[in-house]
Amino acid sequence: MGLLIKDVELGGLETDVLIEGNRFKRIGPNLDADGARVVAGRGKAIVPTFVNMHTHASMALLRGYADDLELHDWLTNYIWPLEAKMGEEDIYTGARLACLEMIKSGTTCFNDMYWHYHGVARAVEEMGMRAMLSSVFIDFNDEARAATEREQAAKLFEQQGRYSDRIGFTLGPHAIYTVSEESLRWVKSFADEHGLLIHIHVSETEKEVVDCRALHGLRPVQWLEKIGLLGANVVAAHVIHVDDEEIGILARNQVKVVHNPASNMKLASGRFPYARLRDAGVHVSLGTDGCSSNNNLCMLEEMKFAALNAKLVHNDPTVLPAAEAFDMATTRGAEALGLDCGRIAEGLLADCMLVDLDNPRLVPGYQLIDDLVYSADSSCIDTVICDGEILMENGRVEGEEEIVADAKAYVSRFQSQ
Amino acid sequence: MGLLIKDVELGGLETDVLIEGNRFKRIGPNLDADGARVVAGRGKAIVPTFVNMHTHASMALLRGYADDLELHDWLTNYIWPLEAKMGEEDIYTGARLACLEMIKSGTTCFNDMYWHYHGVARAVEEMGMRAMLSSVFIDFNDEARAATEREQAAKLFEQQGRYSDRIGFTLGPHAIYTVSEESLRWVKSFADEHGLLIHIHVSETEKEVVDCRALHGLRPVQWLEKIGLLGANVVAAHVIHVDDEEIGILARNQVKVVHNPASNMKLASGRFPYARLRDAGVHVSLGTDGCSSNNNLCMLEEMKFAALNAKLVHNDPTVLPAAEAFDMATTRGAEALGLDCGRIAEGLLADCMLVDLDNPRLVPGYQLIDDLVYSADSSCIDTVICDGEILMENGRVEGEEEIVADAKAYVSRFQSQ
Repeated sequence: MGLLIKDVELGGLETDVLIEGNRFKRIGPNLDADGARVVAGRGKAIVPTFVNMHTHASMALLRGYADDLELHDWLTNYIWPLEAKMGEEDIYTGARLACLEMIKSGTTCFNDMYWHYHGVARAVEEMGMRAMLSSVFIDFNDEARAATEREQAAKLFEQQGRYSDRIGFTLGPHAIYTVSEESLRWVKSFADEHGLLIHIHVSETEKEVVDCRALHGLRPVQWLEKIGLLGANVVAAHVIHVDDEEIGILARNQVKVVHNPASNMKLASGRFPYARLRDAGVHVSLGTDGCSSNNNLCMLEEMKFAALNAKLVHNDPTVLPAAEAFDMATTRGAEALGLDCGRIAEGLLADCMLVDLDNPRLVPGYQLIDDLVYSADSSCIDTVICDGEILMENGRVEGEEEIVADAKAYVSRFQSQ
Repeated sequence: MGLLIKDVELGGLETDVLIEGNRFKRIGPNLDADGARVVAGRGKAIVPTFVNMHTHASMALLRGYADDLELHDWLTNYIWPLEAKMGEEDIYTGARLACLEMIKSGTTCFNDMYWHYHGVARAVEEMGMRAMLSSVFIDFNDEARAATEREQAAKLFEQQGRYSDRIGFTLGPHAIYTVSEESLRWVKSFADEHGLLIHIHVSETEKEVVDCRALHGLRPVQWLEKIGLLGANVVAAHVIHVDDEEIGILARNQVKVVHNPASNMKLASGRFPYARLRDAGVHVSLGTDGCSSNNNLCMLEEMKFAALNAKLVHNDPTVLPAAEAFDMATTRGAEALGLDCGRIAEGLLADCMLVDLDNPRLVPGYQLIDDLVYSADSSCIDTVICDGEILMENGRVEGEEEIVADAKAYVSRFQSQ
């Protein structure tokens, strides 16, 4: 079995790509099908699919529910009350809608943080994607709640055998203002003991910095280093309000920073210091955040927002060129998650897509990566493959209509409550 | 004849929309086809198509040719040398590609400024769109060149009988640093005499302000008012570097300002003072600029960039909410061009599109306008109608393949020169 993609453009040259099992087996001209299913690649280019490094997938159900509001008003009067009504089946419904949208826009892997872990995991499993999932960990400094959260995290970790290798477990302490110091120390020790990633929001708002200084006399990154949380297994989302000393700490500890430009702009969270992080050698990848603050999960769009945001913030059109944005959305994400994907190369996991070079948005076609970052949208994507399996062909994902109908039914249920 | 769109969602309610000739004839439930062709609208919403208020359509041929460069390097070493090689047939080829891309992303009207007027006009005519076209007017303070430019502008104006009512003629003085004071005064008097619009770049860069002050002792908008150019028929693109006095001048003169957020960010031109312009009552609409500085012509994307750019620049998530961005991209553009389109209402020009409410990006569907501004991409658009004629149906435009092949052939020709 396997897949043989014939006559597809890779790096400007036409070639064949043979996938066996879940990996790229051979890349070169005139390969023999040898029992593999042949996929016509002529007129298309093969590129790696995207790794969405920070999202809350099931919030797809909240897309467009509340926009253009102050952060506090938005959270307390709209998002939290609605989330409180959501059970595991709702989360599953939302995660399937999110997976569908991600596949259609070329993402096959995402790093998630949300409630009702099994709802998300079931959706990912069924949709054939790859994901690192964490159940969000929040204790609000309450000891009883902290104990429950730790128990739940440990239990979820033990249950990983229920899911395929495409699903990984991470720890998801929400942020320093929602998780106690004791729990953060527990998270770190549990993660290090079991070789797990830690997925956390860091310095998304100025308020987090002010409050941390008032409480601990230190800025958030300084304090996280002091309590020993930082390390190469920490994925820190947002990281907007950091000074040069903190940037040095992030670099020294090999923390993986995730930039979420659309969300940061929409919520007016602040100006992401991309050039300063890059110059200090900090590892930066890209994420969409959840649908209630973006409002989509499209990494094509996110690359353009990243590049253009950096040029505006640094007043320099040469900052964050297209190739760097593409790298952030693919290889950098894979590196941060410790996954063998994000590039088209023999031996790597077969996560890739075919883009239609005759789509007007990719024409005339001087430089494919520039066209993907600055011009493309999801209509350019023809085929999506994850773990060696075709998830979308001719722009169609199996079962689309049912997923959409379920999501709409959720809203009817919720609105009639 | 005519079109009857049945059971389509308009403002949240299902209704019928009858188009006769090039206008909306009746809107209401249970309309009789009476010989009109019936279009099935169930599961779709009808919304106005976009008015792209500032572009250089034929630059679609330069998409991805040169990115991530300093403005001066970009213009002098890449864009201008390539443009110098382009003749009327190239401009026609580029404009057809641009029209195709615009139709596919829901734009049916654009305000253009470029060379080889007839090349653009022929493309617009064939593609069935609506456009206000100007031949760019540049004299570099050279009297002989100025005389030629004036003659050409007057001649193009006289030739308007060659084209349908969908094509309007405007005057396109490029900017204050490329057109002499005498020519600007001529443009104003010719425009006022014949009831024409003037399409000009204003204060796109800080350098324009510095140079103008050195030369005239005034800032650009002050100087333009002094020489008498400003008025309700002036469409000023960019308008980034303006102080409060200039903003007052723009409001008082009813100048139509066009915001181009993606281009401004990509070239790091500066921070568009949206809230200050709005508070002063300045009329602001939206444009994509040309493909070499964006790099697409997608007004869906541009609305999101406008809203998110304003929130970042003003550090306020409530600035430029979705409905305002949608207005800038539709009704505001139509108002600025003096056209009877931009809304779905009886008697208005039938420029509209049907969007697929089952596209995952528009699901679950709390607020359609929010979903269009913050989540949609061109894959959500099913049908596009301009001047009562269907230009796209089921996502397909007639003759797509030929237009794309021609644009690719242009690049082969150019690269072999």
